[in-house]
This record gives sequence, C-alpha cells and structure tokens, in this order.
Amino acid sequence: MAFSKQLSAKKRKTIININGKIIPPEKLIEQANVSVFDRSFLYGDSLYEVVRTYEGKPFRLKEHLLRMEKSAALCQMKLSQGIKVYEREMLKSIAAYRAQPGKKNEDVYVRIVVSRGSGKIGFGLKNLESECLYVIMVEPISMFPNPPFGKGLNLQVSKRLRNHPKAVDPAMKSGNYLNNLLSYLTAADAGYDDALLPDQQGFITEGTTFNIFYVKRGIVATPPLDVGILDGVTRRAIINLCVELGIPCREVRFPKEYLYEADEVFASSSLKEVLPVMNLDGKKINGGKIGTISVTLKAAFEDLVKNELKLNK
Amino acid sequence: MAFSKQLSAKKRKTIININGKIIPPEKLIEQANVSVFDRSFLYGDSLYEVVRTYEGKPFRLKEHLLRMEKSAALCQMKLSQGIKVYEREMLKSIAAYRAQPGKKNEDVYVRIVVSRGSGKIGFGLKNLESECLYVIMVEPISMFPNPPFGKGLNLQVSKRLRNHPKAVDPAMKSGNYLNNLLSYLTAADAGYDDALLPDQQGFITEGTTFNIFYVKRGIVATPPLDVGILDGVTRRAIINLCVELGIPCREVRFPKEYLYEADEVFASSSLKEVLPVMNLDGKKINGGKIGTISVTLKAAFEDLVKNELKLNK
Repeated sequence: MAFSKQLSAKKRKTIININGKIIPPEKLIEQANVSVFDRSFLYGDSLYEVVRTYEGKPFRLKEHLLRMEKSAALCQMKLSQGIKVYEREMLKSIAAYRAQPGKKNEDVYVRIVVSRGSGKIGFGLKNLESECLYVIMVEPISMFPNPPFGKGLNLQVSKRLRNHPKAVDPAMKSGNYLNNLLSYLTAADAGYDDALLPDQQGFITEGTTFNIFYVKRGIVATPPLDVGILDGVTRRAIINLCVELGIPCREVRFPKEYLYEADEVFASSSLKEVLPVMNLDGKKINGGKIGTISVTLKAAFEDLVKNELKLNK
Repeated sequence: MAFSKQLSAKKRKTIININGKIIPPEKLIEQANVSVFDRSFLYGDSLYEVVRTYEGKPFRLKEHLLRMEKSAALCQMKLSQGIKVYEREMLKSIAAYRAQPGKKNEDVYVRIVVSRGSGKIGFGLKNLESECLYVIMVEPISMFPNPPFGKGLNLQVSKRLRNHPKAVDPAMKSGNYLNNLLSYLTAADAGYDDALLPDQQGFITEGTTFNIFYVKRGIVATPPLDVGILDGVTRRAIINLCVELGIPCREVRFPKEYLYEADEVFASSSLKEVLPVMNLDGKKINGGKIGTISVTLKAAFEDLVKNELKLNK
C-alpha cells in the first residue's frame, strides 16, 4: 500500500515477529502491519524494551523483560504472555535474522513492543477486543552506530522538562515518547547529537534514551531513580562495576552546572554501553580529554559482557 | 490475521480512510492497518482531532483542523496535506458511512489521526521514509453515549498530575495519551465515569478528554489556557455564549475544593457538549440539583449548532 514503503527494511533484511508469527523481509510491506484500532497507534498505549546481541546473544534479556513486567504494573496492563514467551520469541526472531544469507555473524538490535491490544475507540478496558499484541523487530546493529568512544557525544540540556513521575512515570518504558522525541528534535536541529532533560527544579534526570553519569575527583555520580528516570539495565551494571572496582559511586541530584564542571561525563544504555559525553551545551567537558574512569568502566563493561555471555572474542 | 479481530467494527459498518483510500467495513481486517514502523505505533508521534456530526454535518470542523495545524507547529510536524484536504477527506468519509444501507440518517463520530509517518527506527527526521500518514475513522455516534443531562457525570479528581506544559504541552492534541488514559483507568476502577487532572500546585486543569467549568453565585469560571490544557472548540463556544447571554465568565485557576462548593459544575467537549457534573470525589454538587446556568448554556449551545449548521430539527 502507498502508506508503507519500508523498502529500506526490506533491503536490510529486517525480521518482524507479530504475536509469534515471523514475517520475512519480502513480506514486510504486506504483513508487518497493525490495526488502526491498535491502542499503541491511537494512544501510545504500549510498552517496549530494546536489547542488543553480542555474537548473537542478547545481554541481560531477562532483566529487560522483568522491567517490562514492572512497567506493565505501572500502567495496569495485563500482559497476554509470560515473559518466558517473549524471551523465546525474541530469541527465535534473532535466529531468523541470522539464518538469512550473509547474516550469520551479524549482531542485532531487538525491540519488543507490547501494545495493550485493539478494539473499540475509547480508554476503557472493556473496549478491548483482543489481548495484548506483541511486535518484535530485529535490525542489524550497524543501523544504530555510536560516535567513536574517543570522540564522544555532543549533548544539549533541553529546555523541555522530563515528564513528572506523577504525570507519566519515566520508570515505565512506554510508547508515549513525545517528551523525549521532541527534546531530541530540538537538540538535533541545533546540531547536537542528542539531549538531556532536567526536571522542574533544574536537576538533570536522564537523556532521551540513556542514563547519565559524571565523575568529579574520582567519585562517580548519577541521578537517583526517584528523580524520575528509567531504571536502566546498563546503569545498574555500571553501578555494580563501580562497587566491584572500588570506585566510589553515588546517586545524587545535580544541576547541569555540575556536568559542565565535571572531570568526566558519560552516557549509558544498552546500545551506547559506556559512551563519553565530550561536549555539553557548547562547552568542552574537561578540555576534551577522555577520562580514565570512563575508559576503565568501558573496559570493565566489555569484560562483563564477554564473561557473562561466554563470548569468543 | 490473528491480531486484528475487529469484528465489532465490521458489524458497526465503521468506515476507515487511510491517506484518501476508503476502506469498506468488509475489508477492515485486511486493509485497515498501518505499518509497525509507523511512528504513532512506536512513539505516539501523531496528532488527532475528533468531531461529531448533526444531521450529517460536522460542527466546526475547520476550527478543529486549524487547531491541528497549531499542534503540528508545537511538535515540529510537517503535515503532508493542507487542512483543506483533511476536511475534504473527512467529509468524504462521513458520506461513505452514510451511503451504507440503513445509515442514511445516522450521525457519526469522526476521528482523524495524523502520524508523522514511518521509516527507520529512531527519533531523527532523516529516518522518515514516508510523509505524514492520515487515518480517518467514522463510527456511529451511538457508540459514544453520554449519561443523561439530568443524571450528569460522576468524576474523580485524579492523584495523577496533568502533563506539565513544558514537558508535553496539553495544548497539543497528540497521540501520547497515557497521562489521560491512566487517570481514566484509575477512576473507572473506582467506579467513577471519568477523571479530572490537577497540576502540581493542585489547580484543576481539565478532564481526560474534556474541559471543565463551574458556576458560583451566577459567575461561570474555567481554567485559563496557560494552566496547561487543550484549547477546546466547545470550551471556546461556551465562553462566547456566556458573553452573548450576558453571563459573567472568567478564566481562573482554582483547586478542587472550589468545585466541591460550586453551585454548578459542567464538562464540555465535542462529544459531551455541555454536560453537568453531579458528583465529584463522592460528593454531590449542589445537593444533586441541575443548575440553571448549565441548562441555559446547554440550550444555547444546541441553538448555536442548529443555526450554524442550518439543521431541520
């Protein structure tokens, strides 16, 4: 149909799995569709998670899916499947991607979206005429490149405030993404890579799709969960690595000025892992020098992934 | 497909129009679909408007579409069509609904959703591989019944805060509806019809899908736009009617206690028109008596619609 020309996905050999049915790339346009009555299309009434693979194995997939269960509780969503089913289907979808010619060794990005379902227009749950719908999207990880570690990110502190936890809790990883998305667009328009969002008191919360850390005089700091942020899987891993490595790490509220004056700033996410922020609001962090703790944590994170997933390289 | 069993829509003879193509009820399941790469499905990255018809004619459709243009500016969305095209297609869709056997005299609910489009996963506009997509949904108005005027609404003031205008501006009628939707679900769970949302200062903003007014000692009051609310088409019409009728009307910030103690409270929206709120947080408003100004404004609104649309009855 005229409205879905995902030719680039077809070329990339993207795999879509809808409610357990794998859709091959050549059928994406005809079949990788959801109803206009779907509540994620109508209201963003959905949850999602993203993981990446290393040598074909997803990192901490179960932790992501346990978080999805928590998100579901935060929005009164009754998941139609146990997370074991989601896990199995995500693994199946990764395998389907890698089974394609020339894709055997390719690592992937995997997104799962769980919509509350579809039915009659209207908020009430009695309008639902289906169970939750899940869509799994497998893309080559090369589609989501990061700037080189040594170059780092160039961020803007957004004028837009992060959603208040008592309005739409950022701990819930939902399909309501305009808050982050619009911050991103403004930053991108001004030539930045991405944006950080403050709360109403001016405390930094998180990036549009990542958590934020800074280092000052050897101490690592990151905003506490109750400032209203996602409980990031990578964030948690980094905090644990700090403990293991004997690097002091604190959860503290701080304004953007602390970042301007930090020795090191870095972002964390499943896709970014540990990625330095070298520029913020047009200011160079620490004169543009990569910090030693960022380097240490990046290496420690790589080791963690390697050991946990028993990687070959 | 297993995931879209909109049999009730098929039975209702719902008409869907996607980018100008009318989909008849018997083809809804196969054709009334959008891509999983659609940004409204992924992020709620869309705008919408709702109108209803009277004797087949939509009330103030142009005003709704002008508001959509404003919403588009608030989220940097480049509409792919001029609003004249949306207007024409909405009228065409209404006509298609009413051309069906037995539907000739049926009034309808019309929703238009404009998604930013579809493409690669990711916020950046360079990921877009299509223009905006529009979907028009025409349903029988009988699907959206109001409680009788004399019974009125039974509302809860939500513990959830309305989105802050500097986070996601409620003036933008977008596909990010979890804030309202979750307030609704909590209220419905507790046996209420719907919910009102306060801001962080405890001032009442609006309902989940409607504006709110109260009357005290003959003066009508409603929250000002800058408290962070939708600039409702019906709200505006009511304010104008007050002026014409010589009823004093003020835009003021007020806490929920003002509503508890009001002589009259009523909701306004395109679907609710002027609808009394008789119960709030378990308290009867004005001892459960319908107020004279609500009655006056309801009648004046009906006259306005009748005259403006040149209705027969």
